[in-house]
Amino acid sequence: MYMIVVYDIDVKRISSIHNYLRQNLHWVQNSVFEGEVRLSQLMRIKEELREFIKSGDSVIIYTFKSKKHLKRWIIGTEKNKIQNIF
Amino acid sequence: MYMIVVYDIDVKRISSIHNYLRQNLHWVQNSVFEGEVRLSQLMRIKEELREFIKSGDSVIIYTFKSKKHLKRWIIGTEKNKIQNIF
Repeated sequence: MYMIVVYDIDVKRISSIHNYLRQNLHWVQNSVFEGEVRLSQLMRIKEELREFIKSGDSVIIYTFKSKKHLKRWIIGTEKNKIQNIF
Repeated sequence: MYMIVVYDIDVKRISSIHNYLRQNLHWVQNSVFEGEVRLSQLMRIKEELREFIKSGDSVIIYTFKSKKHLKRWIIGTEKNKIQNIF
């Protein structure tokens, strides 16, 4: 399956959540990560993200069974090109 | 169809792009908007967004034929609840 993660968290915790997500997904923009995952990985990432967040922080995870349902357009600069994904 | 927009743009242009997207989609988090649109609306939004961005700015648009292909989890605070969408 495919997942997109977007976060809006206190600046004190941005570096740790960014580093954690980089180990698991592809960074695509500012506070946005994407990647192909198995269900077990998705469940683990969801659980581990809970350890990073505190009151007022927000993380949204979008998932799709397959990338074939998803289209993606970039307007402007592609901050970090994802090879062989789309 | 359903669309998600995420942006990473110079702070000088954030207010104008935020206000533009608020008129067309639902704000869900920091620099993330979502909404159900027709193809003609999607094409219009894509074109109009080009007017906001300058060198170094980046906007990513994800689209899906139907929300039924999409699941959505929120960890932490739901910044702006979307009624009757999921």
